[in-house]
Amino acid sequence: MENGSKKWGFQGNKSLSSSSSITVRGVLNLLVDNLNKEDTRQVIPLAHGDPSAFPCFRTTPVADEAVVDAVRSAKYNHYAPTVGLLPARRKRHGGKELGRSVADYLNRDLPYKLSPDDVFLTIGCTQAIEITLTVLARPGANILLPRPGFPYYEARAAHSHLEVRHFDLIPENGWEADLDAVEALADENTVAMVIINPGNPCGSVYSYQHLQKIAETAKKIGIMVIADEVYAHLTFGNTPFVPMGVFGSIVPVLTLGSISKRWIVPGWRIGWLVTSDPNGILQESGVVESIKGCLNISSDPVTFIQGAIPQIVDNTTEDFFVKINNILREAADICYKKIQDIPCINLPHKPEGSMFVMVKLNLSSLEGIDDDMDFCHKLAKEESVMILPGTAVGMKNFLRITFAIEPSVLEIGLERLKAFYERHAKIQ
Amino acid sequence: MENGSKKWGFQGNKSLSSSSSITVRGVLNLLVDNLNKEDTRQVIPLAHGDPSAFPCFRTTPVADEAVVDAVRSAKYNHYAPTVGLLPARRKRHGGKELGRSVADYLNRDLPYKLSPDDVFLTIGCTQAIEITLTVLARPGANILLPRPGFPYYEARAAHSHLEVRHFDLIPENGWEADLDAVEALADENTVAMVIINPGNPCGSVYSYQHLQKIAETAKKIGIMVIADEVYAHLTFGNTPFVPMGVFGSIVPVLTLGSISKRWIVPGWRIGWLVTSDPNGILQESGVVESIKGCLNISSDPVTFIQGAIPQIVDNTTEDFFVKINNILREAADICYKKIQDIPCINLPHKPEGSMFVMVKLNLSSLEGIDDDMDFCHKLAKEESVMILPGTAVGMKNFLRITFAIEPSVLEIGLERLKAFYERHAKIQ
Repeated sequence: MENGSKKWGFQGNKSLSSSSSITVRGVLNLLVDNLNKEDTRQVIPLAHGDPSAFPCFRTTPVADEAVVDAVRSAKYNHYAPTVGLLPARRKRHGGKELGRSVADYLNRDLPYKLSPDDVFLTIGCTQAIEITLTVLARPGANILLPRPGFPYYEARAAHSHLEVRHFDLIPENGWEADLDAVEALADENTVAMVIINPGNPCGSVYSYQHLQKIAETAKKIGIMVIADEVYAHLTFGNTPFVPMGVFGSIVPVLTLGSISKRWIVPGWRIGWLVTSDPNGILQESGVVESIKGCLNISSDPVTFIQGAIPQIVDNTTEDFFVKINNILREAADICYKKIQDIPCINLPHKPEGSMFVMVKLNLSSLEGIDDDMDFCHKLAKEESVMILPGTAVGMKNFLRITFAIEPSVLEIGLERLKAFYERHAKIQ
Repeated sequence: MENGSKKWGFQGNKSLSSSSSITVRGVLNLLVDNLNKEDTRQVIPLAHGDPSAFPCFRTTPVADEAVVDAVRSAKYNHYAPTVGLLPARRKRHGGKELGRSVADYLNRDLPYKLSPDDVFLTIGCTQAIEITLTVLARPGANILLPRPGFPYYEARAAHSHLEVRHFDLIPENGWEADLDAVEALADENTVAMVIINPGNPCGSVYSYQHLQKIAETAKKIGIMVIADEVYAHLTFGNTPFVPMGVFGSIVPVLTLGSISKRWIVPGWRIGWLVTSDPNGILQESGVVESIKGCLNISSDPVTFIQGAIPQIVDNTTEDFFVKINNILREAADICYKKIQDIPCINLPHKPEGSMFVMVKLNLSSLEGIDDDMDFCHKLAKEESVMILPGTAVGMKNFLRITFAIEPSVLEIGLERLKAFYERHAKIQ
């Protein structure tokens, strides 16, 4: 072809082409490619945190109808408030009102009051992470991330040339952060540490005491805490959820959140980035100005979903939340019990929150399985069960199992996992 | 305060803090701050391209109901197709189906067939621009942008460290691109040129012949064409809209588009990035792989709006589009006529498409007005009329006037503009 031989002056950015290998969705896509198309059984999705397709996890009609009302009102077809405002005063006011709604929601659990100006609406928690890391990146800076963690942080940090240093979460301590390691890793170029609570991928819920120690450690080092609370309030064990913002007067906190998980609507793409910082340090240090600048050159969440937020947050009743947490508790119990019956995996800590549990893979009990990646690829191929290899979240030879699916389907998945083990068990 | 004196290890990225001054929304926000809150008259918004708040520009009920159906179906609460797919095969298929829908829509105007794999759904055209510039950025690379243009390109290029070189659009030639300048500016590090057709900010619509010359020029230099067609089909003059993709066999084209403008729903945040490239050069050169990698670490458009796309595209009837174009024609005519009566501004070319017109400001006819910024600030303050200074789109001492508002309101706005002129006219 004539054009084929021509020399063109462009090429794709190669660092972007390779980004897929380090995100959860990249690894999931590889697993999907491994599924056996001849297997007519249902694919059991234990690899990702999105139970929205299961009827028992259907969101509340309150949320659906809030969106329907917003669409039909025709009041929210315009660009979102930070863009051109028309008529200007009312819409700017509108922006504040939406911020107020999220602030009020978060204030229920805080000892001080967030103002609407502390709240920035984002395209899910994903964009809140993107904005945060973009804002903090500067030449030579580094950030402390948990291991295991959520690899989107690593991918965005790499994209922003922000150096990553990992501190371990300790399985024996309920996956608490190794705060000695945090202190040892930090230097004058460290800008922040990230915690994910309730924990992805560990299913942990941090105590008030541990969160306070995190705040004190961060203060001592002089860094902010980025608190990823996308699983906020999804707890069903003995430890209640405490937002990191409770300690905002000890250390400045950027709280990242969303309605994606608690309302089971990850596809709605609405979340927030909140400065939980009653002392105004993030304002003083230029971080707030930089967040605004970054949002200014970023895409906005859908306006009518922003418009639906007050109705969603105000009108959802406690029974919906209780129902979801009860299903999660039941599923976590099934997961815990069934795993005791599968000798090749070991559960260091019973999950108390989020949608996941991390289990250790005992390779010596298996024949012909190289590692966690190999395990998950073969499991997908042979049993149409998708589980995330620990490597994808920073812990080789662990597995991250999602229990947030219809309990009966979870049982089938874990039975197939057991059958897979039995077929591959090393003969003693 | 104890924390106030502490040394913290973080600060906001300063280049982000300053980004607001170079985007349309940044300049708009400054104008809003200039409005006189004592003026009880309606603010007349002639500064931005979002007429959705006016009843005559209300979107078709077909679009509203497509979204309502998608929300109520509960089939689209999950993460979008590129993320974890569940049940995997069906949803991956689903992703293709949505792509097919946009491909079919665009294929109506193309001499070859786009495949669903050519289509990437994005968060409005804004994210399509972001992805495109991120993918093309590499050390030393440069891109050719039109002047006047849409400053979001400049802002994103700066963020990605992509050097910008400007070629002029020539008012006397109906704002056609100066292709001699394009050739003179390009070197071995030039990756692409951008055209915006129908034109923002000029209201121009390029002829088949001019688009063909653009394709041939780009081919000669060895660069791709980025065709921003967010205003596609919003034409009401003698020149019909021709998509740049028609010339995809001469030169590879990345087509950027959206339902935002044609359906008057910019707040819905759904658009596309399309490889209009029948020879597969973008695939060969790694650009496609890089687009996928970039999307993989980016936020997705809302799933249920993606789900509504086939219904929106297939069911909207021609009479809706005709109605909108008729209102735009009427408004453009009002604009053209009224401007003849205001001696301080001069219209080089009657608009034939999009929602804007560029007029030259004749400062010598005014007393005490420094430049276009000063003009627009004083106009906002004194008359509660918002017009975008040409500086914001790269042309000092021009003004960009939006005519896409309710015609009766447009008349009021232009009368106030005339009154402003009369108050500030230089006495001869």
